[in-house]
Amino acid sequence: MIIKEISNRRSVREYKPDDVTDELIIEIIKAGQFAPSAKNNQAVEFVVVRKQETKEKIFEIVGQEYVKQAPVLIIPVIDETKSILPVQDLSVASENMFLQAAALGLGTVWKNLRPEWEKGVKKLLAVPEQFRAVNIIPVGYPKNKIEPHTNADFNDKKIHREKW
Amino acid sequence: MIIKEISNRRSVREYKPDDVTDELIIEIIKAGQFAPSAKNNQAVEFVVVRKQETKEKIFEIVGQEYVKQAPVLIIPVIDETKSILPVQDLSVASENMFLQAAALGLGTVWKNLRPEWEKGVKKLLAVPEQFRAVNIIPVGYPKNKIEPHTNADFNDKKIHREKW
Repeated sequence: MIIKEISNRRSVREYKPDDVTDELIIEIIKAGQFAPSAKNNQAVEFVVVRKQETKEKIFEIVGQEYVKQAPVLIIPVIDETKSILPVQDLSVASENMFLQAAALGLGTVWKNLRPEWEKGVKKLLAVPEQFRAVNIIPVGYPKNKIEPHTNADFNDKKIHREKW
Repeated sequence: MIIKEISNRRSVREYKPDDVTDELIIEIIKAGQFAPSAKNNQAVEFVVVRKQETKEKIFEIVGQEYVKQAPVLIIPVIDETKSILPVQDLSVASENMFLQAAALGLGTVWKNLRPEWEKGVKKLLAVPEQFRAVNIIPVGYPKNKIEPHTNADFNDKKIHREKW
């Protein structure tokens, strides 16, 4: 039941220092690559950062302790010359990655990149100019127990029948 | 294994006329509600259209035969006074809905709403001005067999280690 993984995906902001194997990172990225994209452009690529030195530099740009704490950071980027909906494409790929990570017992969070941060992070990682980034995805084992979504988080008043 | 549902999610553009129960539609919307949102705004709402007359009117605005053919259309919308990242929030909620639908044997596709179409669809459905819509999600049983993603769709050349 996929609703289990969907319910287990919670934003994680504290990570254990335990490393995450490359095999698991590849499973997460594969999930991202299997996401839909506008006119099937398949133009999302991924930068995987493990070096502490680089994570410290990213922290200097975007803040947030977990950027230094998580063993791995994944930055999905998309070639804007190939996608007409870059933000949407990066977002749906990110959600697949969040869910795959949760299914593997790993935590993630959408660390948003403001435009000025995006510029700095792209420069640091030598990402070509034509690529867009909207977030940084830390990946690691959650420090605290995950409380899954329950039916209490479901609100049927947000469903409108036929019209508003 | 969530990768199975992720692999089975393909964009479906031809639907059987068979109806989709409200129970299943609610499962799909629940998955959308369990998606993350910027600063946990939880401001996504959903319009569910089943009336053929309304689908015909939407078709007149956005085109695409499947808009008339699919038994159900779901239009996720978000209150822009509550979300600082409306496109991202709608996109990740949509991906959860695509995956939950696939897990239920149902097909979906991201029918993009250009700004001029968004205006017309919102007016037709009486969606308040402050809400944003980026897509229409038809839901129905796929007319043709789904070919899941395989490892052939995975490209490890799109993974960059430490920097580009």
